[in-house]
Amino acid sequence: MIRVGILGATGYVGIEITRLLLLHPGVEVSCVVSHSFAGKKISDVYPHLAGITDLYCEEMDVASIHEKADLFITALSEGISSEVIPLLLEKGKKVIDHGGDFRYKSVEIYEKWYGKKHTMPHLLGRSVYGLPELYRDSISTASLVANPGCYPTCSILAAAPLMKNRIISTDNIIIDAASGVTGAGRKTDLPFQYSECSQNFKAYSVSTHRHTSEIEQEFGNLAGAPVLISFTPHLVPMKRGMMCTLYANLKKRASTAEILSIYEEYYKEEFFVRIMPEGRLPETKYSSGSNFIDIGVVADERLGRVIIVSALDNLGKGAAWQAVQSLNIMCGYDETTGLKVPGLYL
Amino acid sequence: MIRVGILGATGYVGIEITRLLLLHPGVEVSCVVSHSFAGKKISDVYPHLAGITDLYCEEMDVASIHEKADLFITALSEGISSEVIPLLLEKGKKVIDHGGDFRYKSVEIYEKWYGKKHTMPHLLGRSVYGLPELYRDSISTASLVANPGCYPTCSILAAAPLMKNRIISTDNIIIDAASGVTGAGRKTDLPFQYSECSQNFKAYSVSTHRHTSEIEQEFGNLAGAPVLISFTPHLVPMKRGMMCTLYANLKKRASTAEILSIYEEYYKEEFFVRIMPEGRLPETKYSSGSNFIDIGVVADERLGRVIIVSALDNLGKGAAWQAVQSLNIMCGYDETTGLKVPGLYL
Amino acid sequence: MIRVGILGATGYVGIEITRLLLLHPGVEVSCVVSHSFAGKKISDVYPHLAGITDLYCEEMDVASIHEKADLFITALSEGISSEVIPLLLEKGKKVIDHGGDFRYKSVEIYEKWYGKKHTMPHLLGRSVYGLPELYRDSISTASLVANPGCYPTCSILAAAPLMKNRIISTDNIIIDAASGVTGAGRKTDLPFQYSECSQNFKAYSVSTHRHTSEIEQEFGNLAGAPVLISFTPHLVPMKRGMMCTLYANLKKRASTAEILSIYEEYYKEEFFVRIMPEGRLPETKYSSGSNFIDIGVVADERLGRVIIVSALDNLGKGAAWQAVQSLNIMCGYDETTGLKVPGLYL
Amino acid sequence: MIRVGILGATGYVGIEITRLLLLHPGVEVSCVVSHSFAGKKISDVYPHLAGITDLYCEEMDVASIHEKADLFITALSEGISSEVIPLLLEKGKKVIDHGGDFRYKSVEIYEKWYGKKHTMPHLLGRSVYGLPELYRDSISTASLVANPGCYPTCSILAAAPLMKNRIISTDNIIIDAASGVTGAGRKTDLPFQYSECSQNFKAYSVSTHRHTSEIEQEFGNLAGAPVLISFTPHLVPMKRGMMCTLYANLKKRASTAEILSIYEEYYKEEFFVRIMPEGRLPETKYSSGSNFIDIGVVADERLGRVIIVSALDNLGKGAAWQAVQSLNIMCGYDETTGLKVPGLYL
Repeated sequence: MIRVGILGATGYVGIEITRLLLLHPGVEVSCVVSHSFAGKKISDVYPHLAGITDLYCEEMDVASIHEKADLFITALSEGISSEVIPLLLEKGKKVIDHGGDFRYKSVEIYEKWYGKKHTMPHLLGRSVYGLPELYRDSISTASLVANPGCYPTCSILAAAPLMKNRIISTDNIIIDAASGVTGAGRKTDLPFQYSECSQNFKAYSVSTHRHTSEIEQEFGNLAGAPVLISFTPHLVPMKRGMMCTLYANLKKRASTAEILSIYEEYYKEEFFVRIMPEGRLPETKYSSGSNFIDIGVVADERLGRVIIVSALDNLGKGAAWQAVQSLNIMCGYDETTGLKVPGLYL
Repeated sequence: MIRVGILGATGYVGIEITRLLLLHPGVEVSCVVSHSFAGKKISDVYPHLAGITDLYCEEMDVASIHEKADLFITALSEGISSEVIPLLLEKGKKVIDHGGDFRYKSVEIYEKWYGKKHTMPHLLGRSVYGLPELYRDSISTASLVANPGCYPTCSILAAAPLMKNRIISTDNIIIDAASGVTGAGRKTDLPFQYSECSQNFKAYSVSTHRHTSEIEQEFGNLAGAPVLISFTPHLVPMKRGMMCTLYANLKKRASTAEILSIYEEYYKEEFFVRIMPEGRLPETKYSSGSNFIDIGVVADERLGRVIIVSALDNLGKGAAWQAVQSLNIMCGYDETTGLKVPGLYL
Repeated sequence: MIRVGILGATGYVGIEITRLLLLHPGVEVSCVVSHSFAGKKISDVYPHLAGITDLYCEEMDVASIHEKADLFITALSEGISSEVIPLLLEKGKKVIDHGGDFRYKSVEIYEKWYGKKHTMPHLLGRSVYGLPELYRDSISTASLVANPGCYPTCSILAAAPLMKNRIISTDNIIIDAASGVTGAGRKTDLPFQYSECSQNFKAYSVSTHRHTSEIEQEFGNLAGAPVLISFTPHLVPMKRGMMCTLYANLKKRASTAEILSIYEEYYKEEFFVRIMPEGRLPETKYSSGSNFIDIGVVADERLGRVIIVSALDNLGKGAAWQAVQSLNIMCGYDETTGLKVPGLYL
Repeated sequence: MIRVGILGATGYVGIEITRLLLLHPGVEVSCVVSHSFAGKKISDVYPHLAGITDLYCEEMDVASIHEKADLFITALSEGISSEVIPLLLEKGKKVIDHGGDFRYKSVEIYEKWYGKKHTMPHLLGRSVYGLPELYRDSISTASLVANPGCYPTCSILAAAPLMKNRIISTDNIIIDAASGVTGAGRKTDLPFQYSECSQNFKAYSVSTHRHTSEIEQEFGNLAGAPVLISFTPHLVPMKRGMMCTLYANLKKRASTAEILSIYEEYYKEEFFVRIMPEGRLPETKYSSGSNFIDIGVVADERLGRVIIVSALDNLGKGAAWQAVQSLNIMCGYDETTGLKVPGLYL
């Protein structure tokens, strides 16, 4: 039984992690930190947790917070992260962070896409990119894991077999993506009001979204050479769910069946990656409320192009659930502990 | 480990039961029957179950179906129920049924509200109304449990403390209710098409809904005298969730706090009934994806009236999850086994 | 051609009025005031108006605003109303206001339900309650019209024939109501965020909603004696639309057909009131995007009770469109000018 | 005043046309044909039309239908089209058709993508592709207009300035598109049930959608050379609205402002095409309920690529409203008659 502290527990990612860990047989949630709701029962802030926990939200005392748990999951605004994370690591604690700071190997790329100085560049060497399907071994011994972005998780797992097997040309890759509204977090901004975003569909951050650079980093690692991509996110009027539709030109003709067999081979040991049978494609409801990612393949032989469609729950495999997957690996638990749950469908 | 057969597994209630029981530590799902999809993998029909189960849907052979499990959960159309349920009971099997047939003590009332002959009146004496908070002991020894309707569950638990404590007059009770669309089941009727029921709200079956009679039966049992009610259901453009708003005139003035203390006392041993603190009311998202029912109380002292607001998941405590709660009781398991899950909220 | 100024044009009611009046053949929108967006083109704030108008939002200069139009429609926060409305009237301008201030005949009732002092009690004698179906003649000569609340419009028109014909007892009237989210206005409060209110249903302001008192005032006028009611609003996950389900005990038995004929007679001259045929009930999509209110009747002969179901668009007949209906009457235009539009359905 | 007959009036496109034409000052709706609802008042089938029209749905008598109107709008299943359209033309009537049959110049391409024989190839020479922004003059004298598909309208208008000005290479064009559910029509198929498609996002018909060929035909005409594209539609959980996100490689570097000025020039006379200012992109709510198409441009100078985002209402400019635009042109009315309406936004 390890003690876990959740710093930033009342955002949407934080509360989903809390919900999951309250059910996790190997974890005691020993502290939940929320600046906005310090002093309140978490079940008064989120009444779906009533009857399940009597935890109170705490204000964070940076100097002593390390005493409260063995492992910390941080979903904090950036200013606070740089105060507390170095200290936690210094005290020998393990950390799984949700910010962008530790996802990059290059400070320059981070600073260019995030438009600001990196405050903890000395920690980049220690951090591991928390995508278990690619970095399981490193995660198992890491003290600092950077939980990937939702779009990057959905994109990287969609493309990894293509990249690794060098069957596509890397200079015309388009990723057209779409996310449910919880991806924006628990904000009160006007564009995320029900009356503004219900019954509405829009593109945003076209050609400038930060996740572009995160995807390009990992695509480059997989391909063994730099890769630049077009990435366009859209906002879908639904709570949970994310889809990436990826287009790439095939180096040589291949059928859907041939490419599918490459995917099945590549992911044959992966519990949370489901390859759809030929002729079927993912829908977000299949993985909603779960840690699964579903991947479908269509080879367009007319055009010599492959189209990959991937779907996951932006709060699931795209955030909270994937963090718990890494936690399991870091703690020596079976990787599926507390996560062996099908999607909701309804 | 008991073997459970699910007859009618590919309707919305059936598939939710299947999803739950696949995760249940004391249950082996030994057979899933679906007339429409016999011969198909259930995960091809419902891809959210891929990676979790390799079960195939079976056609039902009435003569031998009893061999396939120890306990059967039936969510069948009516004609088939009367063929198979008597046989299962004869063979010593336990049955939890989702039809209206076994919920009534009076054949006359059933026949009046359902507009047809009852085909198994001889079994009514054996059947127990599967509302654990009211009939836990009888359920524990029952071989035939009638899982209650969703509106009745939501209404009866909302009103039981008032009825039992005789603090309301029973001649002006109004229940105004609302349900998400999954309550209509997996039908392809025009009114349940997305384009027809999204962004739309409507009342239906006003003064004629069958559940009226089921609620009246149980209200009568609780009050010790016949009770007639107005019951008006509405359709809400959401998938899951149900709310009842109940109005009743108080026999004598009482404050919200006084009535709340009656509720807290009445339900103090009930894990799945959550009484909201004064000044707060349920929202369907608190119990969505769970077996909880949330109940809020407002005494309107100006009018001498009490308003009770109750919410549950129509597929959760209103159907599939409550069936598993009864299953746990019937099998001697801890009543919360497999069900100790908070709502989804998001 | 009259010149109309819209004060508070960028809220949801204001922008719907603007949209309507830009298409109105007898109106020139001569000024749109918006504190938040002063100096911006209104089509930059609301791009659906691009190509239709080049109007700019103005800041309000209280001293000179009266020069900008002949008639003003005000949808302002309360503090500002009391500064500007008296001045406009003094200058001989006509005003249609959307606040609660001028809807009441009794200062005491207003102050009790709104919890504050009335700032313009001297104007109550001049103001007319802007429900054309009840007060058409007074509106035609009024200089100050109080546009009714959405729930009151939906409730009063639903009950008027019952009240006026004295066929119900007035001591057990329940109105259970539901509204789409635009009813909350263009706010950025957390409960109205998409992720919070999509796929969710809840009751709010139970027994305390201000509109209760507005409904009671008009019910009292119709019945010729004081009437107290229970009124419970709910929030529906949809943008537009409102429904009231009203329960009342009949003084003597009556069939649905008999009550329907009373409604048809009562509203036989009213273009915007549609009585549903027997056996059919309103759905909000029928009137969404229009000035219609639909009313359905069910007599529950078993209980001696009548249930009235009424539906309208909370931004339509419940707010903006009704204001334009009053404007037409005040200006001597045909009452349906610019409003003879069916609902959207889709 | 021309008399218009609507054949197939009770589908979603048909009823939207009916709604529009009932308000059109130059049109008398002289007959509405619906096989499914023949003999019923159309306002009983679609109650939003109550109070607006007393029209009855008729069964179609092929031999005499031509007598009922001067111009016919057909939204029929294919078998019936080929029976009635040739006859109408023979009798000198004008026809605007919604099927795919008359949109193609090449019988081969039609037959390849539709997978069946063309039944009226002799009429292809007479038919005009009903996209007024490209074919206004031909439409003005046409007797047979093929109303374009929704995705093609959204794609072709998005790309026309790029194609016509030869500033993109045509061999790597990707169109990633998304549509609201009314695009599927008034069907009762399971995938379009609320419980199946609410809170869900999916791709469909990947690399095989018929509209691909329609887009390629018109792209080829504009570019003066054959063009092949990838086209991927997605289903969005909303009623109305459509978006295309188009990716193309620029022949030489260009800024967003430079490309925008090309668009502004190209569409400067077009009332229904709105070019978004730099830094802003369309959202479907801007054009929902209108005949507008909104187009936004982003040049990604890092990649030498341009991304065009276009949005329209699939029932508006994508179907019913565009048909009325063509009707106006064919009848010599001002092109905006009955269509000068802003989007709904809410």
